[in-house]
Amino acid sequence: MAKVLTPRSESYSQWYNDLVLKADLAENSAVRGCMVIKPYGYAIWEKMQSVLDRMFKDTGHENAYFPIFIPKSFFSKEADHVEGFAKECAVVTHYRLMNDPDGNGVVVDPEAKLEEELIVRPTSETIIWNTYKNWIQSYRDLPIKCNQWANVVRWEMRTRLFLRTAEFLWQEGHTAHATKQEAIEETETMINVYGDFAEKFMAVPVVKGIKSANERFAGALETYTIEALMQDGKALQSGTSHFLGQNFAKAFDVKFASKEGKEDYVWATSWGVSTRLMGALIMAHSDDNGLVLPPKLAPIQVVIVPIFRKPEELAKIKEVAGGLIAKLRDRGIDVKFDDNDNKKPGWKFAEYELKGVPVRLAMGPRDLENGTVEVARRDTLSKEVVALDGVDEHIVKLLDDIQTNIFQKALDFRAQSTVSVDTYDEFKERLEEGGFIMAHWDGTPETEQKIKEETKATIRCIPLDQPEEEGVCIYSGKPSNKRVMFARAY
Amino acid sequence: MAKVLTPRSESYSQWYNDLVLKADLAENSAVRGCMVIKPYGYAIWEKMQSVLDRMFKDTGHENAYFPIFIPKSFFSKEADHVEGFAKECAVVTHYRLMNDPDGNGVVVDPEAKLEEELIVRPTSETIIWNTYKNWIQSYRDLPIKCNQWANVVRWEMRTRLFLRTAEFLWQEGHTAHATKQEAIEETETMINVYGDFAEKFMAVPVVKGIKSANERFAGALETYTIEALMQDGKALQSGTSHFLGQNFAKAFDVKFASKEGKEDYVWATSWGVSTRLMGALIMAHSDDNGLVLPPKLAPIQVVIVPIFRKPEELAKIKEVAGGLIAKLRDRGIDVKFDDNDNKKPGWKFAEYELKGVPVRLAMGPRDLENGTVEVARRDTLSKEVVALDGVDEHIVKLLDDIQTNIFQKALDFRAQSTVSVDTYDEFKERLEEGGFIMAHWDGTPETEQKIKEETKATIRCIPLDQPEEEGVCIYSGKPSNKRVMFARAY
Ligand SMILES: [Zn+2]
Ligand SMILES: [Zn+2]
Repeated sequence: MAKVLTPRSESYSQWYNDLVLKADLAENSAVRGCMVIKPYGYAIWEKMQSVLDRMFKDTGHENAYFPIFIPKSFFSKEADHVEGFAKECAVVTHYRLMNDPDGNGVVVDPEAKLEEELIVRPTSETIIWNTYKNWIQSYRDLPIKCNQWANVVRWEMRTRLFLRTAEFLWQEGHTAHATKQEAIEETETMINVYGDFAEKFMAVPVVKGIKSANERFAGALETYTIEALMQDGKALQSGTSHFLGQNFAKAFDVKFASKEGKEDYVWATSWGVSTRLMGALIMAHSDDNGLVLPPKLAPIQVVIVPIFRKPEELAKIKEVAGGLIAKLRDRGIDVKFDDNDNKKPGWKFAEYELKGVPVRLAMGPRDLENGTVEVARRDTLSKEVVALDGVDEHIVKLLDDIQTNIFQKALDFRAQSTVSVDTYDEFKERLEEGGFIMAHWDGTPETEQKIKEETKATIRCIPLDQPEEEGVCIYSGKPSNKRVMFARAY
Repeated sequence: MAKVLTPRSESYSQWYNDLVLKADLAENSAVRGCMVIKPYGYAIWEKMQSVLDRMFKDTGHENAYFPIFIPKSFFSKEADHVEGFAKECAVVTHYRLMNDPDGNGVVVDPEAKLEEELIVRPTSETIIWNTYKNWIQSYRDLPIKCNQWANVVRWEMRTRLFLRTAEFLWQEGHTAHATKQEAIEETETMINVYGDFAEKFMAVPVVKGIKSANERFAGALETYTIEALMQDGKALQSGTSHFLGQNFAKAFDVKFASKEGKEDYVWATSWGVSTRLMGALIMAHSDDNGLVLPPKLAPIQVVIVPIFRKPEELAKIKEVAGGLIAKLRDRGIDVKFDDNDNKKPGWKFAEYELKGVPVRLAMGPRDLENGTVEVARRDTLSKEVVALDGVDEHIVKLLDDIQTNIFQKALDFRAQSTVSVDTYDEFKERLEEGGFIMAHWDGTPETEQKIKEETKATIRCIPLDQPEEEGVCIYSGKPSNKRVMFARAY
């Protein structure tokens, strides 16, 4: 059977594009930079959402919804914020169309011009802090811990499905606190939630750390990040959590009376992950045959393909499979029985490989006679014949094994791809091989900028668990007391 | 305790506004016509979403996501559709801001003008059918049954929280079929899903019917609706399902090859419910003390208020309550234990009444001694003292009773408020009392329009279960073979 995907060795980026399209995850739309998320891709996103939403609620957050539009003037209130987002905004200027006087369809009605333009939200700090102003008078109103699931728009010039699109789906948490300490703790709690989600559900190992000033969120005092390594050796920023200090409270004049009756500005955090996680999930595990999905996020965890020639054979297989399906569903496993007779088993095998279904069962008349079933696992592509009796137990364990195995594989790959270097020459050399490079840096934005210009590598983060270590900056030779993590990134 | 809400008898519309604000459901934002849905209101919407989403999946639908923007030219492709929506569209004309040369914040960058304006979706038929064009070649690609949960924007001039807002949240299903018959069946299936949801979960009885031509969705051949009656005697359209014929397939040139190899245009449906349902839920059941929520959609189904003076008393109550809470949660019931000691029990009682929590338990030291607990139900405001032993069983049954009771109450109210009239004078007289009026109509848009102009009443629907009956139109005296349902409406 002909390969439907460009092999990774030939072109990793073409392989990615092929995979997103062929596995029915997403496609480009008629609107520049905006994607259509197809049902199979959306089903994965829904599984992500449902796990994350549970984690947010378990850490004391509530969902809410704020307007998609932000008055232009709100944008200017926080200087760094407007600087960071103004260059890529969709702007609503009118609120009505009219029939073209020349008879060519519809045109914008010039009389329906807005007094103040509205920005389609690229992120919601400004509209939310303008709202919080009315919700907060005293320490008794704090903390506020809201999350919203929403679409946002950033007018990116070069877009790629899931990784960088003009419109994307995300969640954004926005919290308000009485003390700096509490806000910092919240920021850290949420980067840990993201890290746990990435590792335990996506099976993607991540490095948690702090962004350098150059890479910080526009308006934040500190940005925490989780950084994942893709198979091509590039980093992918997968989630961020921002300590915003009192910046937005000051911009929107949000003060509270403390227990002691003193007035102070409120402390803020914000944190988000987006459909970009789909890109990370796809790129971290998949192979030249298609997607490899971690069982915990696979919309179909087990597929059963009957092998038959005659309807009587199918009927018998259906009966036996029915019992197994009931048992698996009882255990909360998503099972599909594919008896579509327009397609041959071989076609189906390739299709479910392409779609990353973790476990595939094949059942034919001979299996029924022998009381067996063929079990194939997607991650290793290996097959075994298993007794039908007790196969449900076997599958539960197998799904766990697959989840563990693909995480371990990604972890091993990252270990192999992480190096420490001590000179700029070595840095540039190793960079060509991809991966994470731990190196000393003098702590200045200027040095970081120079390295970026010369090599396209950026500081992905200053890892939280990085030990102190005396050294000299690979670029400037100035003293440094900690290595930071460099990489080329998506 | 002073009433926090304007009584319904004084002003029903002020009562509604008070309730939405005071119960922390939603509020107006800084953006004209756009609302903020607050956590408590959003929690109700989430419960609605989760039930509806299950119902959609059980009827064979998948979720997907399509772009928020629609190229202006797509809009003109279906004549009725553009006519229906062009007058209330948010239009994106630019994609960048820049620093004001005069130093006043940011302004729209005139160089970043879009070649073609983008409309913020008011509904997605056009962008979706433009996408389906690429998904459909043959009958094997059909049916397609997608749903999307999304925000939409219609630039309404007079807005009211939940009932009519410029931005609202909704779901929109869009299906594609090989035959007319199948599309009609889908349209009917979905209006039945909506009807079941309204009656079994929202406890709101609805009349299912077909819209007259005047009230049809822009671009549909037939619009099915569910109509609910509010306490002030006005109707609220709560969900619609449209048979779109081949209109959108023709507008976007979506053809398929049939089994027999013939080419034909694809048949379409679309259907949606929105955060407007929140308005229906609030107005159908609530009273002058606050919200009355059906247990099946209440974020908090049971609240336990401890009555104590000393910390030792609280500790004992907590212990006993803990056992009960565990039992209730095991049965899937959402319970809150409110031991906030900044607020008095009386304040809490009023607060949970305002928020419509179906069952409230009060537990004091004397209750512990007697092995009892005070159980209050929100719908009837009655209280009883119940033995603690077995109270979990009691509560499960009570929640069922409340669900049934508020539905029955709404059903009785509707029965009392539905009348048949045979003359226009009687029609006008009864209209002042509110309610549904069954009357003969000659079937012409002109008559409907005249009645609307003269009385502000519209034909809410031609009920599906309305028997044939010879009669004459109350307005024109022309023959009619069926009564239709009139009302003033939200
Ligand atoms: Zn950007
Ligand atoms: Zn409208």
